[in-house]
Amino acid sequence: MKGNLFVTLTLVFVLFFASLAVAQDTDPLSSWNQGETRQSIIEFVDRVTEKGSPDFVPCPERIAVFDNDGTLWSEQPMYFQFYFAIDRIKALAPNHPEWKTEEPFASILKGRVKQAMTSGRKAISKILLESASGMSTVKFKQIVQDWITTARHPETGRHFTEMVYQPMLELLSFLRANGFKTYIVSGGGLVFMRQWTDEVYGIPPEQVVGTSLKTRFEMEDGRAVLMRLPEFHFLNNGAGKPKGINLHIGHRPIVAFGNSDGDLEMLEYTDCGNGPRLIAYVRHTDAKREWDYDRDSRIGHLDKGLDRAKEKGWTIVDMKKDWKVIHPYD
Amino acid sequence: MKGNLFVTLTLVFVLFFASLAVAQDTDPLSSWNQGETRQSIIEFVDRVTEKGSPDFVPCPERIAVFDNDGTLWSEQPMYFQFYFAIDRIKALAPNHPEWKTEEPFASILKGRVKQAMTSGRKAISKILLESASGMSTVKFKQIVQDWITTARHPETGRHFTEMVYQPMLELLSFLRANGFKTYIVSGGGLVFMRQWTDEVYGIPPEQVVGTSLKTRFEMEDGRAVLMRLPEFHFLNNGAGKPKGINLHIGHRPIVAFGNSDGDLEMLEYTDCGNGPRLIAYVRHTDAKREWDYDRDSRIGHLDKGLDRAKEKGWTIVDMKKDWKVIHPYD
Repeated sequence: MKGNLFVTLTLVFVLFFASLAVAQDTDPLSSWNQGETRQSIIEFVDRVTEKGSPDFVPCPERIAVFDNDGTLWSEQPMYFQFYFAIDRIKALAPNHPEWKTEEPFASILKGRVKQAMTSGRKAISKILLESASGMSTVKFKQIVQDWITTARHPETGRHFTEMVYQPMLELLSFLRANGFKTYIVSGGGLVFMRQWTDEVYGIPPEQVVGTSLKTRFEMEDGRAVLMRLPEFHFLNNGAGKPKGINLHIGHRPIVAFGNSDGDLEMLEYTDCGNGPRLIAYVRHTDAKREWDYDRDSRIGHLDKGLDRAKEKGWTIVDMKKDWKVIHPYD
Repeated sequence: MKGNLFVTLTLVFVLFFASLAVAQDTDPLSSWNQGETRQSIIEFVDRVTEKGSPDFVPCPERIAVFDNDGTLWSEQPMYFQFYFAIDRIKALAPNHPEWKTEEPFASILKGRVKQAMTSGRKAISKILLESASGMSTVKFKQIVQDWITTARHPETGRHFTEMVYQPMLELLSFLRANGFKTYIVSGGGLVFMRQWTDEVYGIPPEQVVGTSLKTRFEMEDGRAVLMRLPEFHFLNNGAGKPKGINLHIGHRPIVAFGNSDGDLEMLEYTDCGNGPRLIAYVRHTDAKREWDYDRDSRIGHLDKGLDRAKEKGWTIVDMKKDWKVIHPYD
């Protein structure tokens, strides 16, 4: 009997830990803490994917849109594309002796980045446009590719693509596994993002909606080339986001995640269709593991959107409370 | 022995006809005549899909783009969207008493359509913009839906969506069966086309690239609405086509089909990438079953493109020679 008891106990132990391991392996949202937020996501997906359910949504309409800066990766102390822009301005400076005295370039070249970046929308536009134009799309893709694989965040020392949110990576995969098509709808540069979104998020170029520059078609030595011009074609922020969705996707999404007032119109647009919706704001509440900001922040300003979310009962993802880890390297 | 011979012969006959039936069933391009054109398409697809081949192209890069008017459906005696525009102008006329004397509207209301449509680009733009703006995107979709299911071509009496090219439908399916993603890249209206391209061509809204209008985001009784404005956002024709491909798709296509000089830049842009390419012009050579036109036609004008195609050795699809049937109802 003693022998039998030992065998039985061993078996129970083995089965117990095996079941734990299986549970961990198969939990698609393992970085999300148990609780209301996680539960609301799972329940929503169950509702729209269960055949015969009155809320069933066929696959082609399972469209999920995500802001990028502050929703899929960090955005402090300034939007990551600004670091790219600054590095480009520095690299281009030898060809622009006039920049030594011309603002906002002079400030950047003197290392006064904050001064340059807080000198107004026009100055920021100048920097962004100069950093991303004056070459073919093919050449620009290569420049972004080289930069994203080498550049590092000044505070964490990490590659920028490491500073994505692990729980959001899991959410993207979870939605795709349930027949959703996941899109980025971001104020960031369209071509800038497309160089790495597939590898990092599993989102291919054609599912990225972003801010774009005008281009000029040219035949160069008998070959067709698109030259990038220092002029915006489309600003994909604020009211631009539903417009971008309409232009690129053509379906109204049923899932939308954002983190700032710049996402509010996208969330409203997603919300006002028929049938079930998952509308969410990611809140930056974790000063220790990431950053803590909302109404008073210039970057990722969240004020009007927060009030509206409460009024409408949208999901609030609280980083500190809802996420076991923030970044994959945590 | 005689009995055995009879059985054997019967079996041979049955097997022979059965094999014919199977061959017909499984021929993905059964409306294409045997010959050089058909062969070049099949050989291209074999080359890029055969694993281990030096020309193998992975699925995400198997992008095929198609013009619509004159390439996937007919376009004579005028672009089909013009019929929609004219019907809209007539329907809107009671709200616009000034149109009785204002051109080009006056001509249309008097039934002088040809006069209105040949009175210059500005007049045509006016008609197109008026016919497609002044309402929400949701309302416009409904209007297009109602029109496309009821309107008929003035010469054939067919629904416009019946006047698609059967061999091109087969080509689209054949490419998709071989891992290609098929896109429409057309000068036609983006939202106008999206209402029926999925049903007719198997091409979903997000794979349609077209000409778009500006929109205005509005909150109407607490609901987000995109209002269509009488102003072009993007003209997806000529040099606009490679730009549209760059904005919407982000990959360079490896297959491109067009039928007019308005497709030339798209064909050049597709052609100048690395690796194998299938670049083709559909030629309207069949006055009996469809129409016969090229260098002298206003609609589907093909002149410069034809010379370039010959110079570059692009595929020429000759409707009369290469297609067993033109439309599905033939």
